[in-house]
Amino acid sequence: MVVNQLAQPRLMAELPRITALDRRPLSDALAHAGQVTQARIGFALSGLDSPVAAAMHYAVAGGKSLRAFLALESARLHDINPAAAVGAAAAIECLHAYSLVHDDLPCMDDDDLRRGQPTVHRKWDEATAVLAGDALQALAFELVCQAECSARARLNLAMTLANASGVRGMVGGQAADIAAETANAPLGLDDIIALQAGKTGALISWSALVGARMAEAERGPLSIYGQALGLAFQIADDVLDETGDATVVGKAVGKDAAAGKATFVSLLGLDGAKSRAGDLVQEACDALSVYGGNADTLKDAARFVIARTH
Amino acid sequence: MVVNQLAQPRLMAELPRITALDRRPLSDALAHAGQVTQARIGFALSGLDSPVAAAMHYAVAGGKSLRAFLALESARLHDINPAAAVGAAAAIECLHAYSLVHDDLPCMDDDDLRRGQPTVHRKWDEATAVLAGDALQALAFELVCQAECSARARLNLAMTLANASGVRGMVGGQAADIAAETANAPLGLDDIIALQAGKTGALISWSALVGARMAEAERGPLSIYGQALGLAFQIADDVLDETGDATVVGKAVGKDAAAGKATFVSLLGLDGAKSRAGDLVQEACDALSVYGGNADTLKDAARFVIARTH
Repeated sequence: MVVNQLAQPRLMAELPRITALDRRPLSDALAHAGQVTQARIGFALSGLDSPVAAAMHYAVAGGKSLRAFLALESARLHDINPAAAVGAAAAIECLHAYSLVHDDLPCMDDDDLRRGQPTVHRKWDEATAVLAGDALQALAFELVCQAECSARARLNLAMTLANASGVRGMVGGQAADIAAETANAPLGLDDIIALQAGKTGALISWSALVGARMAEAERGPLSIYGQALGLAFQIADDVLDETGDATVVGKAVGKDAAAGKATFVSLLGLDGAKSRAGDLVQEACDALSVYGGNADTLKDAARFVIARTH
Repeated sequence: MVVNQLAQPRLMAELPRITALDRRPLSDALAHAGQVTQARIGFALSGLDSPVAAAMHYAVAGGKSLRAFLALESARLHDINPAAAVGAAAAIECLHAYSLVHDDLPCMDDDDLRRGQPTVHRKWDEATAVLAGDALQALAFELVCQAECSARARLNLAMTLANASGVRGMVGGQAADIAAETANAPLGLDDIIALQAGKTGALISWSALVGARMAEAERGPLSIYGQALGLAFQIADDVLDETGDATVVGKAVGKDAAAGKATFVSLLGLDGAKSRAGDLVQEACDALSVYGGNADTLKDAARFVIARTH
């Protein structure tokens, strides 16, 4: 057993050729985002054959690749070849995957199923799940530093990713969510919006801003888009938890209602929640009007987020 | 409950004034490193009052601050005011603290005592320990990006920290350590050296190289120093596990021997392990001869590492 300490992946040329992300139907663009992201992460893990490395591979596979797509597409919107943004796209998928692996742990949400497959701690064990999550977070920061842009822009990407994923972002939102389950007073709508802005919104917003950060360009429109999209995404998740079929959704459903948790559906009603999500998607699309037709695929993505079945 | 999403700590001027680390006795230098690091981390967590934030505070307190000291002292060795390196020093202490919080979890080493205090999952609960560790890792990357040096040097610090702490460094070593416990064949000396180079050595080496990376200077001597120091540190840990008193060491001792694990002591004998650690400290000190008297405190630190009682 030899730990290949600090061995950097060599010969970047070995990375499967990544072509520019042309304008294409959303489904193709999402599939492409998943493909190039997986390839980049696979390359970063090349030569490793430990259970932890296998669990890392497993954890990043099979998702929607929405965040990677947002990163690549926002790069294209800024005339940056998406191939230059693959480091950032792969980073956000690693970050997202680590959060799912840890959230699924018995001491957290205790889920057995994720993306239609056994969760990492069920397929391996808890120690492997903790370590694979930890290593995926580290890999995210290694990858984001390798986006192809100025050193200043890369630093900005790394620092904002750290902030969005930490105690003032994703982890803070997750902690507030757990605290709410044990609190006596149920959360109100503003509390849930703030909570979700951290838990889900921060990483989605970051993804949508990748191109603007790489180009060191104006972030206003994509910032509005990302925040509206993040909230719409979470409302849609609550709707799916209420109405979805576990075999299609790929994870347990109905847990929130069973636990008596306040959700967007419990607070707004099913129709109210769907209507609110629709308004947010409209807001997200309107924010991109400055980009004209170039932003059409991002607008499609916003509509997809509330129409999805999984 | 409001999650203060993406709120950056404001007014850096509020950070307690950090004076240059003058040449001083090792004990003072270690205490100073701990003090400025705690202040920087406390500032980063200011305004947060969640259990996870409290657990993060708790986890970074009370350690030896060896890694922070190495970072600050190697900066001084390169004529960099240590105040400029506080971001890197605080980062490495966050990273180290997160690794201890997760290693102590029931599914990993299952320890109740750390630094003489209850471990985080004993004082709070497992979910808080997982999240506090996760957020400490994110905070490490946020802080390391704030070392005061060129953007290129900061990127280099961030990327190498990610590599040293991930599946090819610290996490890889920890995973190999766990795998070894369940394997049939006991590890040999080379295996253990490789394992520890990841588990403990990678972060110690990184710390010692902070100044050279910030100054974009030659890394050879500090690289040899850091690697020898890291290995000596782990041998000393094994010696302490065999001979130490839990009330002084601040954590459980004798666990490795009880578990029949191969350690430096089991492979080299107690005297052989001490002798090997002594040789490594000599190697570490010799490597610093190019710096003359300026490296005296770093040499003292190497001697301290094998003489310590906790």
